[in-house]
Order: sequence, then C-alpha cells, then structure tokens
Amino acid sequence: MVTSHDVARLAGVSQATVSRALRDDPKVALDTKERVRSAAITLGYSPNPIGRALAVGRSTRVGLVVTDLENQFYSYVISPMHRELEKHGYELLLITESSEQAPVADLVAGAGLCGVVLATTTLDSVLPVRLADRGIPFVYFNRTTPNVPADSVTVDPAPGLEKLVDDLVRLGHTRVGAVFGPVNTSTGEEREQALRHILDDQGLTLARKHVRRGPFEFGTGRDAMQELLDLDDPPTVVICGNDVVALGALNTAVERGVRVPEEVSIVGFDDLPTSAWPLVRLTTVAYDLEAMSRQAARLLVERVESGESVEAGGVHTARFDTSYVPRATLGRVEG
Amino acid sequence: MVTSHDVARLAGVSQATVSRALRDDPKVALDTKERVRSAAITLGYSPNPIGRALAVGRSTRVGLVVTDLENQFYSYVISPMHRELEKHGYELLLITESSEQAPVADLVAGAGLCGVVLATTTLDSVLPVRLADRGIPFVYFNRTTPNVPADSVTVDPAPGLEKLVDDLVRLGHTRVGAVFGPVNTSTGEEREQALRHILDDQGLTLARKHVRRGPFEFGTGRDAMQELLDLDDPPTVVICGNDVVALGALNTAVERGVRVPEEVSIVGFDDLPTSAWPLVRLTTVAYDLEAMSRQAARLLVERVESGESVEAGGVHTARFDTSYVPRATLGRVEG
Repeated sequence: MVTSHDVARLAGVSQATVSRALRDDPKVALDTKERVRSAAITLGYSPNPIGRALAVGRSTRVGLVVTDLENQFYSYVISPMHRELEKHGYELLLITESSEQAPVADLVAGAGLCGVVLATTTLDSVLPVRLADRGIPFVYFNRTTPNVPADSVTVDPAPGLEKLVDDLVRLGHTRVGAVFGPVNTSTGEEREQALRHILDDQGLTLARKHVRRGPFEFGTGRDAMQELLDLDDPPTVVICGNDVVALGALNTAVERGVRVPEEVSIVGFDDLPTSAWPLVRLTTVAYDLEAMSRQAARLLVERVESGESVEAGGVHTARFDTSYVPRATLGRVEG
Repeated sequence: MVTSHDVARLAGVSQATVSRALRDDPKVALDTKERVRSAAITLGYSPNPIGRALAVGRSTRVGLVVTDLENQFYSYVISPMHRELEKHGYELLLITESSEQAPVADLVAGAGLCGVVLATTTLDSVLPVRLADRGIPFVYFNRTTPNVPADSVTVDPAPGLEKLVDDLVRLGHTRVGAVFGPVNTSTGEEREQALRHILDDQGLTLARKHVRRGPFEFGTGRDAMQELLDLDDPPTVVICGNDVVALGALNTAVERGVRVPEEVSIVGFDDLPTSAWPLVRLTTVAYDLEAMSRQAARLLVERVESGESVEAGGVHTARFDTSYVPRATLGRVEG
C-alpha cells in the first residue's frame, strides 16, 4: 500500500509536512502543498484507504482468509463462494495466512478489500480485532471467536452425531475412541463437546487412552491411528474430528492390514466428495457445505451494502443442520 | 479500482476536465484544478496505477490465477509458492478465473499486483495479452501459450512416459487406452504428443476407440472408464492425462467390481499425495511439484525486481524432469 512515507520521499519533504499539506494547513507554503499533492496523485495515495473505498463505493473485492490450503475442505468452499459473489458483482481474492508474522490485516487493507470471510480463525487470532479496528466488515465461516462479534455461518454438529451414536449403540460398540480437532478452534471445541455430551446420554464413555487430538489434517489421523492400534485394547470405533483426519486413520488401517470395519470402524465429519468414492465409502456426518459457502457470501454482501455496523444492528448468524451418512467404514463389533 | 469517472463525479466535473486538470492544462480554472486534485487525493486516484506501483516499488502482492480450485492439484502448488514468496518479502493472492466474463485482467490491475503466476491458462486465453499490454510481469506455470512470450516453468513428460511404456511392453500390454487432457491446453497437448510418439517407437498403437478426452477432472476419468469398460474389447491399460482423471477411472472400476490391475490397469500423471495412499497405490509419473512451485515464485520475483522486460532480455524457462512411479494399479496382462 502506498503510504505517506512514499509521498514524502517523492515530494522531498518530511512525513509531517505531507500530513499538514494534505490538511491544507496554512503554515505550509503553497508550492510545497502543490508538490505534495502532485506526488500524492502520482502515487495514488489517499490519507484514508478505507474511507476511499467507502466513499467511492466501488471496491467489490472480497477476501477469503484460510490457513491450510492443502486441506481439501477449502477447495469445496471456494467455488460456490466465488460463484455467489460473482452473481452479486463481487470478486474473490484468496489470502493464505501461512504464518503468524504475516501482516494479513495490512494485506487486507492494502488490497482494498470491501470485506473478508474468515475461514480458519483460531480462538486466539488477532485478525478479527484488527479488521474491526479498521472498520472492514467480515463474516466468520465455520468458526467464531468469542471476543469480536460478527456475522457467522456455522454448523450444528448435534443432530448428525446423535444419529451416529444411536448407530454405535445398535452395532454394539462400547470401546469408543476419538481423534478431536485442535482446542484453539471453535469448531474443534464444539464438535468435541457435542460428541462427549451425546455419548454420555447413551451411557458410553470415552476412555482417556482412546482419545487423541491434533490439527484437522491427514497426518493427525494417520499418527493417532498408529497409536490407537498399538494399544492392548484398541477402540472398536474411532470417531474423527473431520473427514481428512478420518482418511488418514483409514489409510493407516489399510496399510497395517487391519480390516475396516471388521476389526476397527472409522467415522468422519464433513462428507467431502472423496469420502463418497467407491474406493473409500467413509461413514460420516454431512451438512450442506455448498449452501453454507453461498450463505457466507450473501451475509457479507448484505453487510457491505447496508453499511450497517455490528454495534448498531447486531449480528446475523446462520446455523446449518447435520445428518448422519452411514457407509462402509462403520460396522458391527465382532466376537 | 478508482477511475477518472469517480474523480469526475466527486469533483462535479466531466471526465475530460479531470484529465486536463491533472495534466495542469492552463485552460482549466485554478479552483477547478484544486477541486479535481483534492478529489483525486481523497479517492487515492492515480492516472496510471501500473506506473504508481513501479514508481513506488512497494507493491509486493503476487497473484496466482487458477480456474479450477476443486482440482486438488492446485492445493499442492499454493503452499510452496506462498512460502517461497514470503521468503522474498512478497504476499500471495489467489485469483479464481471462474468465468469468461470475469474481468480478471482488471482485477489484477485493481488489486495493485506486482506480478502474476498463470496456472490454468488455455491456449486461447486473452489474459496473457492483457497482462502484457498493461506491463504486468507474469510467469506461466505448467502451461504456456504460443503467442505471448513470458517466463515459464513446465514439465518434460517424456522421461517418465518412456519408462512407463517400457513397463507396458514388459507386462504384455497391447490394447492400450488413454484419457487425454483438453486440446486447448499446452499441458494436455504436450502429454498426448509425447505418449503417442513413445508408444509408436515401441510398436504400440492407440486405437481410436480406446481414446477419450476431457478436462483434467475426476468426472472425465469416471465417464471415460464407463465407456471403455462397456466396449467388447476394452483396453488392458488406461493411461490418464493426470492423477485426478486416473482416480475417477479407478473408482469406476472399483464400483463396477472390475479388479485393478488383474482385469484392467490404470496409470496417472502428477503423483499427488492421494495417489500414494495405501488405499489407492496409483502407478503414475512424478515430478517435483513443490520445487516447480518455488521456482515459479523465484522467476517472478526476479522479473519484478530486475524490471527487465521480456522484449529486452528474453524469457527464462525452467523445465522439470519426470520419473516413473510403479505402484499397484499397473500389472501383467492375464489370460
């Protein structure tokens, strides 16, 4: 982004003089003012980039911030979100937040975005605070953080998990294991609490030794499954925080020659296209990810176009229902 | 992007007056000039946004343009490219070119990008022409187009395909089938020509009825495999344009209960992480996609920082070698 430093350099004056000249301070000489203004125009500098976008009402660029693009989950979010935004005359820019050092908030402001969808925000992320400070509208996607209120699109894991646990009981599972998501995400925390609560209602317990935890990644499921299968009394079913984790677990079982579901059952959450492959047939919990992605786009567009602040009008929340998708990786306990 | 129309509207003058005022045309009244300049500064308008970025030398935003983000291939490109750019002090913005109507070239200019990596350009795309016209540096990634010269990072399919065809001969395959990529991409065309040439050298032919063609997508392999398996004399091996297509073909075989490789062999190209899953074990052709992604980032950074035009100094090309990765989906012809 062009800064007042750049203008100062080009005009050959101090940064303070740039500020004074652009406020039309009478103490600045006329030819200095002229030089500063001409430099500002050459560089396309505006003292207030957000004000600029709002004043013109012309920025139609929406940013989607994600951390882990290697996670195939996001590739199914981007296309519907992109199409929905396009329908409303907006474009989508993807911003990857690969490191804590990356000044993503500056990047968002610098790229002249009219709004942002946050898809991988951790509970301790500073990005929501920074965006709120700068007055950039944003929507939480599949995540929330408690401290900064904003519109959100989330999933209610309970209905799908309830049907799943009914099936666990019916199939005779008593040694239940789980690979939960990270504790610093609302999604990980919420799915874990819902599952624990529902298992409890059905009189099933999660033994501590049968629980693993980690990022929503393939490697988390792979490593957790190695450890669980090495136990003297491995769980009869492993419920994973999402499908990508479950795919990691499933591949470990296949690699070790452990039959699924005869020797161990595996369950996911998300119902990604890969999970429905004839080669995979993962039992999982589903929701309408495409509709959710479109809804996030619509909430953001409404927020941008109304110009209404969260403080003034409150937040809009959309919560999506879940369903249980029985396939081939959950079966009856043998022996 | 802020345009001279916006400035005209805010200043309450015509667009022509904006142009004249900013050139300091003596025919424009002093107070009108003042009003136009003030509006330009408020809006951050510059008569020449490219000149602005070059003059300041401060834009460090690189765009990656891809069409089909649901294709998992790209998710493995983005992370290494992002990390390499970050090392050089640049950020990555992802731009999805979802429709022909999308004014991607305008978006690229409007977002103030210093350069672009083109990853899904078709041979007839206008984007390279538009970028060249605007003087925005770009690099072709895994693609080229013949008309607009630029730096490129591509793959040489021949070494890997030669070893693959050696193995086809050794394993007794004579009815060879193929699912090629789209004819309007250099990648599709080049892989097809290389394979045809190498098969020919080994005395193998591709019967027309055993050849299918389509976009580099899962559905292409799925549908092609249905048709090929319905033939009276299906091919004994199906060579696919990439791994995603091969995964579609493999899942169709599994769904139909056709044993791979006992009844039909399937081969891919790319060696995506999914292809190495114990559940998949796809025989394929590999190259160093991560190194390629990093190299594209480096070529672009060099081009941006040197400021050297393609016309003045010629193009830089990096070509990556391929190798053959035998796994479980290619076997001996039975019977």
